[in-house]
Amino acid sequence: MRISELSRTTGVAIPTVKYYMREGLLARGDATAPNQAEYGAAHAHRLHLIRVLREVGSLTVGQVAAVLAAIDDAHLPRHELFGVTQRALAPTSEGPVPAEVALARAEIDAFLAALGWEVSAEAPARRSLAGALVALRKLGRDCGAEVFLPHAQAAAHIAEQEVSSVGAESDRAAAVERLVIGTVVFEAALAALRRLAHEHYSGVRAALYTPEQ
Amino acid sequence: MRISELSRTTGVAIPTVKYYMREGLLARGDATAPNQAEYGAAHAHRLHLIRVLREVGSLTVGQVAAVLAAIDDAHLPRHELFGVTQRALAPTSEGPVPAEVALARAEIDAFLAALGWEVSAEAPARRSLAGALVALRKLGRDCGAEVFLPHAQAAAHIAEQEVSSVGAESDRAAAVERLVIGTVVFEAALAALRRLAHEHYSGVRAALYTPEQ
Repeated sequence: MRISELSRTTGVAIPTVKYYMREGLLARGDATAPNQAEYGAAHAHRLHLIRVLREVGSLTVGQVAAVLAAIDDAHLPRHELFGVTQRALAPTSEGPVPAEVALARAEIDAFLAALGWEVSAEAPARRSLAGALVALRKLGRDCGAEVFLPHAQAAAHIAEQEVSSVGAESDRAAAVERLVIGTVVFEAALAALRRLAHEHYSGVRAALYTPEQ
Repeated sequence: MRISELSRTTGVAIPTVKYYMREGLLARGDATAPNQAEYGAAHAHRLHLIRVLREVGSLTVGQVAAVLAAIDDAHLPRHELFGVTQRALAPTSEGPVPAEVALARAEIDAFLAALGWEVSAEAPARRSLAGALVALRKLGRDCGAEVFLPHAQAAAHIAEQEVSSVGAESDRAAAVERLVIGTVVFEAALAALRRLAHEHYSGVRAALYTPEQ
C-alpha cells in the first residue's frame, strides 16, 4: 500500500509516519519510484504498536524507541525480557535522593524480600513503589510498606496468569510484543477496572450500610 | 511560617506556590504586613496533596483543580464521591467515535453488567477499558472483553477492601481526601507491584520450566 493508505488504515497522520521513519521507529517502505514507496502489513502493525505505546501507555517517543529496540533485539534471552521492558518503560535519570526516600526504598526492599519475590535490585518499579509510600506519608498517613499487601497479593495473582500466557507463545518476537502490550495495555485496563469496582462497591456499601443524602 | 519555609518544607518552588495561589488551588496566607503573609500546616498539607496528584498521578493543573473542588465541596453526598473523583481525574472531551470503538464500548458494558457491577453509564473508566480492548485488537489479538476477567476479579478484591477502609473514616473531608489519594497513589503502587511480580514469576518459570540462554 501507499503511505496515504497506511496513514488511513492506522489513523496516524502522514507527517507523523515520516517522523517515525526518520527517528528509526518504523522501517522505510520498498522504493517503487524516486518519490514513492510501498508499505505492507508489518508497517501497519508496527504503527498500531507505536500508537498504543504512545496513547494507552503515555510513553515518550524515546521510551517507545527503547521498547522497540528490546522487541527487535533477537539476542536478548527470554527470561530477561521482563526486566529490560521495565527499564525501557521507566525513567532512568534521578537527582540526589532525600533521606525519607532512601528510608522508604529500604523498607520496600525488605517488604519484597519478605514476600519472597526475586526482583533485580535496580528494577525501576521498586522506586515507584517507594515513591508511593513517601507520598502517603507526606499526606499524613502513618503507614509502613505492609499497607501495600492487598495490592501485592492481587498483583501476584494476575502476574502469575499473565506470565504463563506469555510463556505459551512459541515465537520469540510475538512473545516480546505480547509482554510489552501486556505491561502497557493491561496496566491501563486494571486501573480502569479498579476505578469501576470502587464505584460499584461504594454503591453496594452505601445501599447496605450507610444510606446517606 | 513564611512562604520560604513553606517552600522548603514541601519541596515546591516559591514561584510555583504563588502560581497555585493565583489559580485558586491553594488559599492565600494571613497577611502580616503589606508584602508578607503567614502560612500554616493546612497550606503545607494542601501543597503535599497537589504535588502527589501532579507527580504520582500525572494530573494536569486543571484536573488537580477539579479534584480539589470535589474535596472542598461539603454538599457532595459521600456515596457520589467515587464517581465525581473519577470524572475529575479523567479527560472529558472526545471527538467522533469510530465504529470499532462503539462496538468495544457496548461489549465492555455487557461485560460489566454480567459481572453484576453497578457503575454509572458515563463513568470514564468504561471508555478507558474499551480503549484497551480496541488497542489489543488493533495489535492482532482476537479477544473479547472476557480477556479482562482475571483483572476484574483482582480489581474487585482490592476495591472491596479499599472502599471499606474509606468508609471507616468519620470525618468527611478526610474520607474524600483518602479516596483521592487512594485512587491515585494506590493505582501507581498496584502498577509497580504488578511489574515486580512479572519479573518474579517470569524468573520462577524460567528456572522451573524453560531454562534458556
